[in-house]
Amino acid sequence: MKFSVTILGSNSAFPAFGRFPSAQVINFNESLFLVDCGEGTQIQMSRYKIRRSRIDHIFISHLHGDHVYGLPGLLTSYAQLSRREPLRITGPKGIRELIDTTLKLSHARTGFDILFTELSADHGETVLRTPGLHVTAFPLNHRITTYGYLFEEQPRPLNVRKECIDMYQLTTEQILDLKSGKDIILNGNTIPALEMTLPAEPERAYAYCSDTAYSDKILEYIRGVQVIYHETTFMDDLGELAAFSKHSTTRQAARIAELAKAGALITGHYSSRYRDLGPLLDETRTFFPATYLGLDGRTYHIGPEGITHVEAPDRN
Amino acid sequence: MKFSVTILGSNSAFPAFGRFPSAQVINFNESLFLVDCGEGTQIQMSRYKIRRSRIDHIFISHLHGDHVYGLPGLLTSYAQLSRREPLRITGPKGIRELIDTTLKLSHARTGFDILFTELSADHGETVLRTPGLHVTAFPLNHRITTYGYLFEEQPRPLNVRKECIDMYQLTTEQILDLKSGKDIILNGNTIPALEMTLPAEPERAYAYCSDTAYSDKILEYIRGVQVIYHETTFMDDLGELAAFSKHSTTRQAARIAELAKAGALITGHYSSRYRDLGPLLDETRTFFPATYLGLDGRTYHIGPEGITHVEAPDRN
Repeated sequence: MKFSVTILGSNSAFPAFGRFPSAQVINFNESLFLVDCGEGTQIQMSRYKIRRSRIDHIFISHLHGDHVYGLPGLLTSYAQLSRREPLRITGPKGIRELIDTTLKLSHARTGFDILFTELSADHGETVLRTPGLHVTAFPLNHRITTYGYLFEEQPRPLNVRKECIDMYQLTTEQILDLKSGKDIILNGNTIPALEMTLPAEPERAYAYCSDTAYSDKILEYIRGVQVIYHETTFMDDLGELAAFSKHSTTRQAARIAELAKAGALITGHYSSRYRDLGPLLDETRTFFPATYLGLDGRTYHIGPEGITHVEAPDRN
Repeated sequence: MKFSVTILGSNSAFPAFGRFPSAQVINFNESLFLVDCGEGTQIQMSRYKIRRSRIDHIFISHLHGDHVYGLPGLLTSYAQLSRREPLRITGPKGIRELIDTTLKLSHARTGFDILFTELSADHGETVLRTPGLHVTAFPLNHRITTYGYLFEEQPRPLNVRKECIDMYQLTTEQILDLKSGKDIILNGNTIPALEMTLPAEPERAYAYCSDTAYSDKILEYIRGVQVIYHETTFMDDLGELAAFSKHSTTRQAARIAELAKAGALITGHYSSRYRDLGPLLDETRTFFPATYLGLDGRTYHIGPEGITHVEAPDRN
């Protein structure tokens, strides 16, 4: 089942060197989820062929402009493209007023409902629950109220061994029982589900952590995830600036990935002082080898042990 | 003296085919003026090497998102780049609330003053007066309150003939008198300025007309301008749609240019139904031959009789 993340913007503060401000799209089994929406996100969606009609949920980390100024344009474009399906937007308190005021003053009419969920909790909170996927918002440590988002694949049914279905002529009901892990009775004998099934693929999880200072409090939410996107605004020599602005360094992001026992780390939210990101990647890898450079247009496929492969865009 | 316009966005409604929403920069003697600021304007400024620090005035035609959603991002980028000089923003009533609310909710702090001028008049109004240039806002006919902007070069001093300066050994005071058109007295004789000077280059003017339905009421403001930018959202066969949405067709824009006796017409604000703009340009030219296709990144130089030359961007 597909589980991937496509970075649409990897720069901090403002666009530079062709890197857009923060936005990314999670693809879970062809349902798309947008996380953050910096200016130009809809332009990146067109460039990288994101099917925006498949997005029904948008998650916003915080209200700094580089994470949210692309939202009004995306919403009015949905309106112009005659969207009818409701759109859910989850973000910190204030997101509704920001969007409502902007749409009202710019005389935008949308033919679809926008359903806001405003967050203010200082602990983790489940913000989406589907049979296949749960999404949890959890507090980060930034200058203003900010949330990370954890995407967790839900346990999947076991696979019944094909040869058992044939051999025992299993009924549909028996197969469903086995898939859910229930033992069945055949000719008076209890047959353990364990013997008739293959294990389901392990569940995968992805965590988005931006913007934030180093905070080991987030470990309780993200421990054991396959892939973490953690901001690396600064390289290791700018730790003081990171602390002052409540951002993270390469070393700090790597430390979080290590403590979380993550399979892979994706970097991002780069300071505009870094034109060439090679040294930033090299440095992060010295602290956490399974590091991938987050870059606009690239898609990172999430597997049971980390990132299985990275797709580069057709055009960048 | 330089007088040019660089298009940063030529699409209507939303970005498409690499065309951004409305924005353009007027360069008058290396002072830059931004007209409209659709989403991604700051990205286009970087791409086309616009020196944004030279912009002290921004003029907004109306509050539809495709003309204004790039403004918050530009302002916060100015803040991050440590701008100190005040910035003047002129636009319809509501522009201040839109910007103030957005900056407040996104916790943006600017280290410079933003000075708003909110327009509500139903007649022309001078909104900028410098020794070299006047800018007048004038009402257009769109679905919401919308203004066009007229940039008028001011009369320049006459050029004193070099051979007269040498022959008569003119003093600085005499030269200044002649430049302002005043006759001087030499050895008791009145010497007419007309004989001692060459005419100054004729003043040039540029008019921005978008968004608007066909309206010959605007002729009183733009008559005789060298160059008009007039929206051509639709081709001639979609006149009904243009009337309904209060936009203009190629034929209507051309008619305005013709009635205004303009030297040249620049098209723009294209509907996203047109991927290829060749037919739109061809059609407009059948109505008004001196038509130029407005395209992102191109710079149109304004001369005494229209457009002197067009510069294509290094990279598009």
